[in-house]
Amino acid sequence: MNAQKATSIGKVYLIGAGPGAADLITVRGARLLGEAQVVLHDALVSREMLAWCPQAELIEVGKRCGQRSTAQLFINRQIVDLANKYERVVRLKGGDPMLFGRADEELQALEAAGIAYEVVPGITAALAAASAIARPLTKRGVSRSVAFATQAKAADAVDVEADVKADTIVYYMGRDQAANIAAQLMACGKPASTPAWVVEAATTPNQRSRQFTLRQMAAGEAARWMDPVQPSLLMIGEALGTRATEPVEEQAEGERAA
Amino acid sequence: MNAQKATSIGKVYLIGAGPGAADLITVRGARLLGEAQVVLHDALVSREMLAWCPQAELIEVGKRCGQRSTAQLFINRQIVDLANKYERVVRLKGGDPMLFGRADEELQALEAAGIAYEVVPGITAALAAASAIARPLTKRGVSRSVAFATQAKAADAVDVEADVKADTIVYYMGRDQAANIAAQLMACGKPASTPAWVVEAATTPNQRSRQFTLRQMAAGEAARWMDPVQPSLLMIGEALGTRATEPVEEQAEGERAA
Repeated sequence: MNAQKATSIGKVYLIGAGPGAADLITVRGARLLGEAQVVLHDALVSREMLAWCPQAELIEVGKRCGQRSTAQLFINRQIVDLANKYERVVRLKGGDPMLFGRADEELQALEAAGIAYEVVPGITAALAAASAIARPLTKRGVSRSVAFATQAKAADAVDVEADVKADTIVYYMGRDQAANIAAQLMACGKPASTPAWVVEAATTPNQRSRQFTLRQMAAGEAARWMDPVQPSLLMIGEALGTRATEPVEEQAEGERAA
Repeated sequence: MNAQKATSIGKVYLIGAGPGAADLITVRGARLLGEAQVVLHDALVSREMLAWCPQAELIEVGKRCGQRSTAQLFINRQIVDLANKYERVVRLKGGDPMLFGRADEELQALEAAGIAYEVVPGITAALAAASAIARPLTKRGVSRSVAFATQAKAADAVDVEADVKADTIVYYMGRDQAANIAAQLMACGKPASTPAWVVEAATTPNQRSRQFTLRQMAAGEAARWMDPVQPSLLMIGEALGTRATEPVEEQAEGERAA
């Protein structure tokens, strides 16, 4: 509950939609969607997710992979305008609002305009992907930390030094630099045999996943396997390796060919 | 969907209950709870959360802060036994199963016994806490990575070197070592002025939060303020600082001051 000094008529709910599947939003998020008059949603939010708010006016903004996106400043202004017209405004963001979500800029605009708000967390893609591949991000005796990170789009600006010491590392939006990232992690001391997963479109009908080694990822095998149209995660760390004595190896998950 | 070759009659759902509030479980998690015949739940899971499964037999296991806990091996065995007796078994874990949840050990036991399972992610405490204090874990131009970590209970085993390079660091279960952790982070180069939040019992009626500096945390101020009975997070990083008050419109992309 982050009700600020409220001078507008409306209240804005920044809600995390979660990783993709419509039923992986929180119960609170789904209820608030059902009470909204207007919903500003990311382009990546699915039609099934929007079935939680059949009553609401829908406005699509921003951020589709590789396509033209609505400028953040314009989104900020639009949210403020809507809060001056409607009582219940939802800003629906993919994943969790507080992680790689630029929520801070939207909250700043709301605070500057004296508009009441509340933030509702969502399942971030890394957690959903870990569940989907049935691999833990941390593991007793193996991994006591996990880092969620992004990297620059430009190859010469990629720098993994700050990430490499985390036991498990998850890169959001890392596809274009996958080989580069993996090579640098190896150069910084991560063993070439470290399990390196790619998980695409976690929890959606397009979900695919495959386990590589860091060496294979550095050699470009992961990048060749990946679908450039799908959102993807790179997940790297010993905790993500095959469990001892498990029947999982016989199964399709992680073995699906491109 | 991680259905393994099923030889038992039952299927086990490992479900993340989320941070505490009953309506911050996912819609899928709540639905599966309502269909369960038996629910093995962590001691920290609230009575309100268990209202999602009035029909189910409830078994409390493990892990209450500072109290005697059920041994993990016994829990593993119990889940397998229940899957041989019931069709729908839920293992309900606080937060997310794949993060500091020892899910791997439970999945290994299920796989060894040939029992079908599915993992349903949950909101981890760090994301809920960030929403609760309305501070982002990452911030454009300020913070591009966040690490979730634990530390040893013994003061002489605390070692922050692997964590320090993440832009934002969240320590789970760090209360006893808060001053020690903060002092070591400063010794490793984190500025003394870095915002250092404590968030207790996020999203529950007992929620409390307070912003310190890293220097204050190192001096023991955070530890003195904390309630030893409540679960707590230490959240450290520039992204968690007070937002600038000037209107967003006047700020150029990527120039936000910390």
